[in-house]
Amino acid sequence: MAEQQTFNVAIVGATGAVGQKIKQILEDKNFPVKQLKLLSSARSAGKEETFHGEKIIVEEAAPESFEDVDIALFSAGGSISKKLAPEAVKRGAVVVDNTSAYRMDKDVPLVVPEVNSEDIASHQGIIANPNCSTIQMVAALKPLKDAFGIGKIIVSTYQAVSGAGNEAVDELYEQSRDYLEGKEVTAEVLPVKGDKKHFPIAFNALPQIDVFEDNGFTFEEMKMINETKKIMHDDALNVAATCVRLPFAVSHAESVYIELDQEDLSVEDFRKTLKEADGVVLQDNPQEQEYPTPQSAQGKEEVFVGRIRKDLDNPKGFHLWVVSDNLLKGAAWNTVQIAQTLVERDWLKK
Amino acid sequence: MAEQQTFNVAIVGATGAVGQKIKQILEDKNFPVKQLKLLSSARSAGKEETFHGEKIIVEEAAPESFEDVDIALFSAGGSISKKLAPEAVKRGAVVVDNTSAYRMDKDVPLVVPEVNSEDIASHQGIIANPNCSTIQMVAALKPLKDAFGIGKIIVSTYQAVSGAGNEAVDELYEQSRDYLEGKEVTAEVLPVKGDKKHFPIAFNALPQIDVFEDNGFTFEEMKMINETKKIMHDDALNVAATCVRLPFAVSHAESVYIELDQEDLSVEDFRKTLKEADGVVLQDNPQEQEYPTPQSAQGKEEVFVGRIRKDLDNPKGFHLWVVSDNLLKGAAWNTVQIAQTLVERDWLKK
Repeated sequence: MAEQQTFNVAIVGATGAVGQKIKQILEDKNFPVKQLKLLSSARSAGKEETFHGEKIIVEEAAPESFEDVDIALFSAGGSISKKLAPEAVKRGAVVVDNTSAYRMDKDVPLVVPEVNSEDIASHQGIIANPNCSTIQMVAALKPLKDAFGIGKIIVSTYQAVSGAGNEAVDELYEQSRDYLEGKEVTAEVLPVKGDKKHFPIAFNALPQIDVFEDNGFTFEEMKMINETKKIMHDDALNVAATCVRLPFAVSHAESVYIELDQEDLSVEDFRKTLKEADGVVLQDNPQEQEYPTPQSAQGKEEVFVGRIRKDLDNPKGFHLWVVSDNLLKGAAWNTVQIAQTLVERDWLKK
Repeated sequence: MAEQQTFNVAIVGATGAVGQKIKQILEDKNFPVKQLKLLSSARSAGKEETFHGEKIIVEEAAPESFEDVDIALFSAGGSISKKLAPEAVKRGAVVVDNTSAYRMDKDVPLVVPEVNSEDIASHQGIIANPNCSTIQMVAALKPLKDAFGIGKIIVSTYQAVSGAGNEAVDELYEQSRDYLEGKEVTAEVLPVKGDKKHFPIAFNALPQIDVFEDNGFTFEEMKMINETKKIMHDDALNVAATCVRLPFAVSHAESVYIELDQEDLSVEDFRKTLKEADGVVLQDNPQEQEYPTPQSAQGKEEVFVGRIRKDLDNPKGFHLWVVSDNLLKGAAWNTVQIAQTLVERDWLKK
C-alpha cells in the first residue's frame, strides 16, 4: 500500500469555539496531518494545546506563519481573514475560510460538500464556508430541490448563542444564574458585541443577529438569502429570512416553508427523498413525538429534519423543521469536509 | 350622576396563572363588580384571596355556584368549561370562556375586541376568548387587512412556557437551575402534560405545542389557522402556522409573513397604519435597534410590532415580528375586555 500523503495544516483562531472543534474533528477523523499549526491573536498566543497526544504551543498569526502550510482553516473573524488569507494564499496555502469575508466574492466557491462539492475545483486559493444557518438549510433543501424543484423559501430561525462566540455563551449562563437568583441582569455582548445597545438573552428572544442593513433586514438574514442562491446556483430562487437569537448554547433550528415547482407530492415523498440524502437524518414521526430539538442535535454531524407537513392551502407548499449543531455542520465539520474534499479529489493545486 | 350598574362576577380557575391575572385586572380597571366569586377545583378550594382589600374564600366550582352570577369568566381547562359553562348559562350568566371548548362552535362568537367586538352582540350565552397566539396575531394584522387586504399568512411562533400553566414555568426554572449546576435534568410537564413523552425545555426549543393532529399539524397550529379565519370572517384566507415552545416564562413572539392584495406599499405605509391601530404599539426602528422582545412586552396590555420589512422578491409580501404578554392580551386582558364590552354596550341579555 502506498504511503498516505500528509499535509501541513494551520488553524487560525485555534482557541475560539469553532477553532477548538476543528482541531477535535481533525483528530477524530484522522485527517492526514503532517504538522499542525495553531494560530491565534497575540492575547491567546503561548497557550498549550494537544493534538494526537502531542503538545502544540499556540502562536500569534502573522503573514510568515503560513510558510510551508498546505491548508489553512480560518475561523478568527472577517477582519483577520481579510488581512491574512491573501498572505496564506501568496505562500502557497489553500484557505478554507469560515468568516463572511469572501463568501459573496465571485472568484470564491461557497461550499456545502453534500450540495456543491464540484465548485471546489475552480478555487483560486480561497474556499468559503457558508454561514451556519445557511449550511443546515441548504443541506436539507438541496435533495428536495433536485427531486421536486423549489421556487420559494421562507425561513424563521431559532439560533443558539454560541453562534456569537464563547463570550455570548458565558453571558447566557451568567444572566441565567443572576435571573434565577433574583439579581439584576446585565447585558454586554448580545445581540451584537459591537452594536450600540445590548439586551438580555436569558429567558428572552432577540430578533436581531448581526447588524441591520439599510433595507431593514439584518446582515445574518441577508447572508441566508444571498448565500442560499449562490450555493444553489439559482439567482431566481426567492428566499426570505427572519433570524432570531434564543437562550440555548448549541444548535440552530429553522422553521422552513417552501414552494415546489410541482403539485401532488406527499409528505411520504419528502420523507423518502430525505431518507436517502447525504448528511441528512429524518426524525419525523409526530404520532411518537419524534422531531429534532437543539439538544437532540448537539454534538452530531448531521442535519436533522422533522415536522414535515403539506401546506393546507397551497398544493405546492410544504413546511419543515431543520436542526443542526451550529458549531459542527454549521462551522467546524463543514470546514473539515471541504478540506477532506480538497485532499481526496486532489484539488489542492490552484 | 346616575349610580353605576354593578354585576356579580365569577372567575372559574381563580387560582391558576390566568385566573389570578383576571382578578388583578378587574381590580386595576375598576370593573363594576357587585360581588366577586372565586371558583376552583376541590384541591384549591378554601384558599384565601383578596379583592379590593376584602377577603374572599375560594369555593369549589359546581353548577349551583352560578346562581345570581351575571358574568362568569372561565379559565380552568376545556373539560371544566364543557361541564360547567352550560350550567352557568342555564342560571342566567353570560360566560366568557378562555378555553378551546367552544371556540369553533358556530353559535359562539370568538372575539378579540379590537378586531370583531360587534360579534359579541349575537351571543347565545357563551363568548369564546381565542388562543393566546391567535389573539396577538389578529390584533396586529386586522388593521393591515382592512387597509391593504391580506390573502396569505405564514407564521412561526416563539412561545413562552406559561402558556402551558404554572407547572411548566416551575419546570423551566427547576430544569435551568439543575442544568447550570451540572445536575441531571428531568422533564415531566412539557411539551404536553398528558402526552406520552416529555423533553427538557431549559436551554432548548420544542417544536410541539399541544397534541398532534392526523394531518401532522399540532392542535395549537390548527387553532391559529382556524381561529384566525373565524375572527377575520374570511374562510378563503390562507393561514399556515408552526408553533414552537421556548425557554422563557412570559410573552409570545411571532415571525409573520403576509401577502397583501396590492403591490407598491412601503414599510412606512405599514407603520402609519399600525401607529393608528387600537391596542397595537409600533416598536420599529432598526437603526436604533428598536424592536419588541418577550421581556420588553411582559406586563403590558398591548400588542407590539417591529421588524417590518418588505419582501425582497414578492412585491405583495411583508414580514413582521409581533410580541405580546400571553397571560394579558393573550388571555386575561382580552377576557376582561370582552366582559367590559358586554357591560358597556349593554349586550349581557341574550
